[in-house]
Amino acid sequence: MPTFSAQELKAFASKYFMHWGVSEADAASAADVLVSAEMRGVDSHGLIRLQSYYGSRLDQGLINPRAALTLLRESSTTLTFDANNGLGHPAGVKAMHRCIEKARESGVALATVRNSNHYGIAGYYAMMALEEGMIGVSFTNSAPLVAPTHGKAAMLGTNPIAVAVPAKNNRPYVLDMATSIVPIGRVSVYQKNGQSIPAGWGIDEDGKVTEDPQKVLEGGALMPLGGTDLLRGYKGYGLALLVDIFSGVLSGSGFSDQVSSAANPGMARIGHFFAAIRIDAFRDFAEFTTDMDLLLDTLRNSAKAAGEERIYIHGEKEFEKAERAATNGVPLSDVTVQSLINAAEHAGIPFSSKPM
Amino acid sequence: MPTFSAQELKAFASKYFMHWGVSEADAASAADVLVSAEMRGVDSHGLIRLQSYYGSRLDQGLINPRAALTLLRESSTTLTFDANNGLGHPAGVKAMHRCIEKARESGVALATVRNSNHYGIAGYYAMMALEEGMIGVSFTNSAPLVAPTHGKAAMLGTNPIAVAVPAKNNRPYVLDMATSIVPIGRVSVYQKNGQSIPAGWGIDEDGKVTEDPQKVLEGGALMPLGGTDLLRGYKGYGLALLVDIFSGVLSGSGFSDQVSSAANPGMARIGHFFAAIRIDAFRDFAEFTTDMDLLLDTLRNSAKAAGEERIYIHGEKEFEKAERAATNGVPLSDVTVQSLINAAEHAGIPFSSKPM
Repeated sequence: MPTFSAQELKAFASKYFMHWGVSEADAASAADVLVSAEMRGVDSHGLIRLQSYYGSRLDQGLINPRAALTLLRESSTTLTFDANNGLGHPAGVKAMHRCIEKARESGVALATVRNSNHYGIAGYYAMMALEEGMIGVSFTNSAPLVAPTHGKAAMLGTNPIAVAVPAKNNRPYVLDMATSIVPIGRVSVYQKNGQSIPAGWGIDEDGKVTEDPQKVLEGGALMPLGGTDLLRGYKGYGLALLVDIFSGVLSGSGFSDQVSSAANPGMARIGHFFAAIRIDAFRDFAEFTTDMDLLLDTLRNSAKAAGEERIYIHGEKEFEKAERAATNGVPLSDVTVQSLINAAEHAGIPFSSKPM
Repeated sequence: MPTFSAQELKAFASKYFMHWGVSEADAASAADVLVSAEMRGVDSHGLIRLQSYYGSRLDQGLINPRAALTLLRESSTTLTFDANNGLGHPAGVKAMHRCIEKARESGVALATVRNSNHYGIAGYYAMMALEEGMIGVSFTNSAPLVAPTHGKAAMLGTNPIAVAVPAKNNRPYVLDMATSIVPIGRVSVYQKNGQSIPAGWGIDEDGKVTEDPQKVLEGGALMPLGGTDLLRGYKGYGLALLVDIFSGVLSGSGFSDQVSSAANPGMARIGHFFAAIRIDAFRDFAEFTTDMDLLLDTLRNSAKAAGEERIYIHGEKEFEKAERAATNGVPLSDVTVQSLINAAEHAGIPFSSKPM
């Protein structure tokens, strides 16, 4: 894939947001999260959404470009924010930043954000804690796409869980997982390619497992992690619900089908949840990171299954991609490049589609 | 199944623990957790383990019956405990109790316990927070039985995640899930019945998915929630690792294959993690529980898949069983009753095997 300068992509995305009146600082936050997603190889949550999600919603007046994040309630350990329907990324960055500041004083802090929008990759916010030597946690709810076990209607988002934990010589552990088996975009890719999907990813309009991606996309739903009852899909359903409770209910935001979707257009009402935990509140930081290295090395060096050469730690592949992108430029698919050309035309700002 | 008085079962289990010198209060804690598991229908974590796990380890000197829980480090929001190789249940009850007390003051509190033993059902401790109108969280690591994705060796426990959240008119949401697809006991049941297991539950000694329970039990391993790569088993692996980081590493306890197992007998070195969160730190409690009811009712009343009559909320089945057991007595399988008869003989204390 052709590669592009991360700095130029960020500058472009910033200008794009500023076109609608987003402040320079907020636009820079949003651009940084989107380009980070590209660098980490999570292109489904990257620049492809610049126009299709953010620009489109700004155009329709469904996101307030000038919204300020306001603090509704505060204690020595907790923060309740309202994003007032602004962009999710700057809301997330500010909330997690304040959460980390508070944890520095109190050892642990939690923050919620209500009335927000899609904030990109959940892992970005969890990883903010790593720079402080803390554990970071980030959840968000999202448009309903997942059916509860025994149900057939899309009632819960793909509601991701992200947790980042520092190590010593190892890269940090960074779990960043949707609580569905796959995101809806993955089903679309199979549909466009005329391929059938593995049994377990999704259900049709009757709630039956289907291998036809079209049936998942039209009136069907995604399955939660685990899939069918036989493989304990109710656990993935339980995790998706957990994220909705913390992000949607605890924050006082929308939840379940209150979060906007194709079937329920309007304000997103997405909620986020963040946590920051000081490790040295529990034990010496150096002892902790030494043990983290031992745990991660023990897993990585354990016996491989036949035909497998490598056991990964969560986040490892993404760190490797981000390091390559920092050196060689950010690889973008033709579809993403074309979407940026369109976005540039739409907003009347220059974009150089010439690779590095 | 024949039913027994919960009170009499608790009294018997208490006396059983006291036979080895466990204090009356600690014995009562352990008995209450074990009988609660039976009442909630989680018989795999109930009285069947009284002699096979606890008594056997007490006999071998692998659990210290007189160990005190000591506090190693404390802040306004955190507690680091050492169970000094005592029973896991009283350690868990005391740690969660202190955690709740601290959260009452500070809004949020976290506690870890190192050098503990099997503490029974994780949900018991999370549910302690419900009486205070708080959210409760409980994790524990356990004997290595689960292989990491691409691996073939059992390197992680079935490491459960439990979270309890109060509602208003609904029963609380109580997630209490192993991060493997099934516990090892489930595979044993299939093996004893001469049945094959569903593809995805476990792998053989080469790391290949097998439907032969014998191959999982002898040299194989359980698969994490999600199962194969195709169905995103690395997410379940990531959750099992998350629990090991919080319970094993943050606590300063054993982790991965340091936790005792058949292959590595000795002190269990199990670690636990607890959290208590005041809801009114974020928003008014009544508003929260009203929204919880709306969320849970929305899910329960959503469209059912063909052939399904009911969508469950996590913990609902267990609450119904516990209510039936409180009225009609605790149902015990013949195998459990026989194990209690043996335990009574072994410890020289009376047990009436006559059902209610």
